[in-house]
Amino acid sequence: MEKQSFAKGLEGVIAAETSICRIDGLKGELCYMGYSIEDLVAHCSFEEVGFLLLYGKLPNRAELDRFSKKMRDTRDLPEPVLEMVRSFPKDSHPMELLQSGIAYISGYIKHKIHHSDKCNCRNTLHQVSQITSLVAAWTRFSRGQEYVPPRQDLSHGANFLYMIRGSEPDADEGEIMDQCLTLHAEHGFNASTFTARVVAATLSTCYCSISAAVGSLYGTLHGGANEKVLEMIGEIGAVSEVPAWMDRAVSEKRKVMGMGHRVYKAMDPRAKVMEGFLKHLSEKKGETKEYELLLSVQKEFRARMEMDGKPLYPNVDFFSGAVYKLLGLPPRIYTPIFAMARSAGWLSHILEQRSDNRLYRPKGLYVGPDVKAFLPIDKRG
Amino acid sequence: MEKQSFAKGLEGVIAAETSICRIDGLKGELCYMGYSIEDLVAHCSFEEVGFLLLYGKLPNRAELDRFSKKMRDTRDLPEPVLEMVRSFPKDSHPMELLQSGIAYISGYIKHKIHHSDKCNCRNTLHQVSQITSLVAAWTRFSRGQEYVPPRQDLSHGANFLYMIRGSEPDADEGEIMDQCLTLHAEHGFNASTFTARVVAATLSTCYCSISAAVGSLYGTLHGGANEKVLEMIGEIGAVSEVPAWMDRAVSEKRKVMGMGHRVYKAMDPRAKVMEGFLKHLSEKKGETKEYELLLSVQKEFRARMEMDGKPLYPNVDFFSGAVYKLLGLPPRIYTPIFAMARSAGWLSHILEQRSDNRLYRPKGLYVGPDVKAFLPIDKRG
Repeated sequence: MEKQSFAKGLEGVIAAETSICRIDGLKGELCYMGYSIEDLVAHCSFEEVGFLLLYGKLPNRAELDRFSKKMRDTRDLPEPVLEMVRSFPKDSHPMELLQSGIAYISGYIKHKIHHSDKCNCRNTLHQVSQITSLVAAWTRFSRGQEYVPPRQDLSHGANFLYMIRGSEPDADEGEIMDQCLTLHAEHGFNASTFTARVVAATLSTCYCSISAAVGSLYGTLHGGANEKVLEMIGEIGAVSEVPAWMDRAVSEKRKVMGMGHRVYKAMDPRAKVMEGFLKHLSEKKGETKEYELLLSVQKEFRARMEMDGKPLYPNVDFFSGAVYKLLGLPPRIYTPIFAMARSAGWLSHILEQRSDNRLYRPKGLYVGPDVKAFLPIDKRG
Repeated sequence: MEKQSFAKGLEGVIAAETSICRIDGLKGELCYMGYSIEDLVAHCSFEEVGFLLLYGKLPNRAELDRFSKKMRDTRDLPEPVLEMVRSFPKDSHPMELLQSGIAYISGYIKHKIHHSDKCNCRNTLHQVSQITSLVAAWTRFSRGQEYVPPRQDLSHGANFLYMIRGSEPDADEGEIMDQCLTLHAEHGFNASTFTARVVAATLSTCYCSISAAVGSLYGTLHGGANEKVLEMIGEIGAVSEVPAWMDRAVSEKRKVMGMGHRVYKAMDPRAKVMEGFLKHLSEKKGETKEYELLLSVQKEFRARMEMDGKPLYPNVDFFSGAVYKLLGLPPRIYTPIFAMARSAGWLSHILEQRSDNRLYRPKGLYVGPDVKAFLPIDKRG
């Protein structure tokens, strides 16, 4: 019998219809619910984008105020949750803690989100608030510092910086942090979003679905590139070293982190915005080393690739690590920040999945042995 | 443009090749790695089946001894893990705790399983031991009892009963518990196993992949049927009530829990074995009420269905809840017991996935709006 063919990794297979995210990789365009990422970053808070992702429309002032208040009301973490964050071994990865913490918090929320076909969590982004507080708490504890309770008068991004620093960031930094979260809030089907949908389709809870998605994002084939970009420029060290380093990298076929993207064949629109943040913060703080190194890496890499007829552009990860570094954030939490932001998109996909649900249950193609005779243990080789 | 068609829930779509589980739904046959479930239950311990699932072959005596010792060495839980179990709200569901706990333990294991394409966890079933201890610890704490540390001289199933009861079960009960775990250890592609593979394919850790799978199994469309069977017979109350209850259920098109199976069109081979355990334990303990009720429900249901030309058989969940009840186990942990058993299968699938890995990344078919003009917040309706 001829062997059946199939698409490994479900590549090219359509898993569901979606109205959330539109990506035009050739033109370098990204829209959430029909709105361009450029408009959303320029004009909306992260909370406003969260509302858009849950309701499919931009809120008016009263709707946004109500929604923001609900989100901010759930920023604080119960003491037993803080205790499990505190007890988590310092040298372990905060993504494992996030995956654990989000499932754990599920036991503590007042308004339990029960299994239900009609998932009624549309009026909340609690998980997004709580993941953010988990990341901040872990960061403080990992440095031997005390927990800083959240403030309700700050934007989502500014409050995150406040909970990590213990002091209020200036308006500029708070806004950039908020905008970085908007840039990462959603990006269509990918391994973690697909994971969230697969789990949600069993009618498991939103918390359990998001916890599972965090586990996926932890995978090195998925999250984590921005941390590696910083490691790369740390290894290069100085602008004068870039050409020689790049010659070696190209000849060794070593992957240059943060360059190119599976979907975008033009410039990643998020990378343009992120580069603007980096330029602004570098100049403001007078710390331009990383930015200069990145520009040089980009130039030298593209010169070599374009000679080969392969135009390649930086993606959002190329610049984001350096932005977070200038905001005083430790590399260990760059993937957790990605999870904080993307949890808004995961929730949107969970709701979409539930609105017309079907359990995901693809087939495995059995290629193993036929039935074997059983051998007692003492007769086995 | 004509709308693209696709298989909702990936129904009928092949996601991967697999050599682990062979199910012949028409004949009612189930094999793990080529060995029939009847042989495995009759002749093997759960640990032996675990070895088979990880190595693809049955162990000889020395191999099994080494493997069992490794599993038993990791039964105990670190104090901070016990503390997070203790602090988990008593009225919350232990599946959420399991999902959380497995990701949390990842921070505590000595031999960290790092991200790696070559997943080197083949010589362990640590997660299986640890999930089991988590379930036992939660059960004790939820009753206000103290933690009972594991014993190394007992089989996997007997130790589980010991950790819950605080006293050693008789050999018979220990063996039945062990065999129940073997019956549920693996069942091909399904939502939770698929979740484990999707997460593992990102090169996330085994712990994070299993934690995500627990989240999937928690969904009411997936796990939890055996608990509902017991609720059903509790509602019926007495054998004399069954015919009238069944008439109502059939006329109201109400689902009769534990009857029929998506895959098996003949008798679920696991149900036959499970019925044997139930018969044995019922007679031994002189508590035959549940068994008699189940037999009556089966008879009355099938009589009505077969008149309609629909032969339907009980599945494994139809009998398992009553078996667990006779073993003194509370209904709240029936789905967690499923997770304990299936974690062996999940690990097997994680290893298989990693041996020829490709990130799962199906496509979403965008059916949302085109780009919209942005409206400032004060102009929105």
